[in-house]
Amino acid sequence: MVFVVYAFRERFRRKRTLIATIPTLSISFHIDATSGTARAARLTTPHGVVETPVFMPVGTVASVKGVSQDVLEDLGVQILLGNTYHLYLRPGVEQVRKLGGLNRFMAWPRAILTDSGGFQVFSLNELRKVTEEGVTFRSHLDGSSHFFSPESAMEAQIGLGADIMMAFDECTEFPADQERARESMELTLRWAARSKKYFEQHKEEVPWNSDETQALFGIVQGGMDAALRKESAERTVEIGFPGYAIGGLSVGEPRAVTREIVEATLRHLPAAKPRYLMGVGTPEEIVQYANAGVDMMDCVLPTRAARHGLLFTSEGKISIKQARFASDQGPLDANCGCRVCQRYSRAYLRHLYAANEVLAQVLNTIHNLSFYLDTMRSVRHSIALGNRAQLLSGEQSGVKP
Amino acid sequence: MVFVVYAFRERFRRKRTLIATIPTLSISFHIDATSGTARAARLTTPHGVVETPVFMPVGTVASVKGVSQDVLEDLGVQILLGNTYHLYLRPGVEQVRKLGGLNRFMAWPRAILTDSGGFQVFSLNELRKVTEEGVTFRSHLDGSSHFFSPESAMEAQIGLGADIMMAFDECTEFPADQERARESMELTLRWAARSKKYFEQHKEEVPWNSDETQALFGIVQGGMDAALRKESAERTVEIGFPGYAIGGLSVGEPRAVTREIVEATLRHLPAAKPRYLMGVGTPEEIVQYANAGVDMMDCVLPTRAARHGLLFTSEGKISIKQARFASDQGPLDANCGCRVCQRYSRAYLRHLYAANEVLAQVLNTIHNLSFYLDTMRSVRHSIALGNRAQLLSGEQSGVKP
Repeated sequence: MVFVVYAFRERFRRKRTLIATIPTLSISFHIDATSGTARAARLTTPHGVVETPVFMPVGTVASVKGVSQDVLEDLGVQILLGNTYHLYLRPGVEQVRKLGGLNRFMAWPRAILTDSGGFQVFSLNELRKVTEEGVTFRSHLDGSSHFFSPESAMEAQIGLGADIMMAFDECTEFPADQERARESMELTLRWAARSKKYFEQHKEEVPWNSDETQALFGIVQGGMDAALRKESAERTVEIGFPGYAIGGLSVGEPRAVTREIVEATLRHLPAAKPRYLMGVGTPEEIVQYANAGVDMMDCVLPTRAARHGLLFTSEGKISIKQARFASDQGPLDANCGCRVCQRYSRAYLRHLYAANEVLAQVLNTIHNLSFYLDTMRSVRHSIALGNRAQLLSGEQSGVKP
Repeated sequence: MVFVVYAFRERFRRKRTLIATIPTLSISFHIDATSGTARAARLTTPHGVVETPVFMPVGTVASVKGVSQDVLEDLGVQILLGNTYHLYLRPGVEQVRKLGGLNRFMAWPRAILTDSGGFQVFSLNELRKVTEEGVTFRSHLDGSSHFFSPESAMEAQIGLGADIMMAFDECTEFPADQERARESMELTLRWAARSKKYFEQHKEEVPWNSDETQALFGIVQGGMDAALRKESAERTVEIGFPGYAIGGLSVGEPRAVTREIVEATLRHLPAAKPRYLMGVGTPEEIVQYANAGVDMMDCVLPTRAARHGLLFTSEGKISIKQARFASDQGPLDANCGCRVCQRYSRAYLRHLYAANEVLAQVLNTIHNLSFYLDTMRSVRHSIALGNRAQLLSGEQSGVKP
């Protein structure tokens, strides 16, 4: 009986909310300091404040592989990324929605961003078919057939209930000629408008008991053509979103091209809105892009490299599997304050990796995330002091994401 | 130059120690309370106090699979078990010795016990050959041939430098006839004497800078024959050790036989010394054996079961993979205060397991260890109050170690 009364009150409260209130803008973006093109800001979401520039660890299926949420909190993670494609397949959107959304499902009280599924589906290559309506693809898990449209991708992301969701886009392949890049960009623009329309009509369906809604970001495409990127940026801004992402990079193009396209795109995105560069990058790159004016980045590099024993340190990257570390009693990184470097020796970490112990993955991931987060903290600090941020570490390049 | 001076001082200090001091008894055992046959005691080791009855988590190759040492500390783990056979193969005894012993190698400041390698070698079956001198066996890693004698097993355990080491024994197979069980028991007794002799001659070689040495425990064998067990116990006590283990159980015999043999053996072991039952057991069993007067136990069950999604709770054991947990928002165990039960839902744990996420193993292991340690804490508390300990949980049996 108590339960019935409670359920009734909840329903009443929810209904009243839908009727009586105009949903407040779900996020706000406040720039605290600038230094050249770089800016230090605070992105306020329904699940807390995110200090930018920020690196978002990837938690594909509602878990940063091997790392418990309390450790992520201790590392200072303020926002996680979840992959809509993976979550849609397992445990399924309805499952997450019923349980109150991703935050509650994975016991993560801070902010979450979900991608649109577009990039993931793009990665499936032979398993997908793109039409005006959307993308038909086969599950990498069991080969079953599925369909994502801008509308169904929004429905999925509303069900998942992340603070920030992404418009459904087509990630243009590399290389692509100018005609193909334009065609793909136009499709992404039409899908952006459809994404926004569906989101506006359904945003109150978010699975929280809150007056706030999610925020939908647009994605700029346009291949490796600066003019198309400019056009994509301007027309995406015309549609109007509270934040903008640069997609379609890190798809096999040379790093110099990535940088050129990022810079060509950034100058056409509004300074007052958060700018998110998707799928980037090495420690050097995240510093470079933060200096260029990017506010948000995500990449599997620190977590995936950790699983392969590749560790980022202030003296450059190292492969912990090497025999030269077998008797090395020093910490992984003498300049790192993370719980791994404070406790364990390189010899022990090397042993764990060589013995294929699960703890190797756990500790390596914690350290690499700590290195990325520390890097971003120092970037923010530099910007606040009016300095151009410098990578506080040695040479990290040569590790592919 | 500073280093040279320091190294010289260290060498001098060590030499002086060897010459000038009679090594103090490395462990002490103080009984705080008894209740029937059960006792609550404190076992003081060179690396801290262990409150008994105690359950020792298994950290085979210097890691409790998936769990960081700081989490083990938070769980209240006071002593870990390491497997000599595995550590001998990888990273190798010399490696661990050079790095200061297991405690320093794995950054674990509390007590450690190493087994003798006898049981592990016994498990290799076709890969081993037993003679009076010792056991020739092949590595499960690369098939290379190795030899363990009582002397080399002691040498290995001194190099590993655990607080407590075990005499080299032959684990009698099950079933074994009376003649075979006696023959095997006699071999173990001769090996026990050789183990003690080698240890007494070499115990100062422990890789710590300490005036304390390790402690060597004897192991009682004798198959499933109560008379042989009595004889083995009495003759092992005659050789003289600071603690005694009951080996050769949990090798396939019925549980009722295990209990009978444990009880038949315990009454012939000195009450003033710690008694260690090797390789046991379920939550019910560790309570039963603590009531019977066992002080120390170890088992892979909580950690191995966790990796298979089998979780011990106050309402009995559950298999988290079951579909019925997919929407279960409750904690794994509402009566458990561990960091897993305090944060995550059954639905999330079920999802992690179904998605084959590494975090499933991490969290499941933490919970199961927490359940075992809480069980032992409540047993100690009951003994201190003069009560016979009761399992605070539901039915847990039916899970094989």
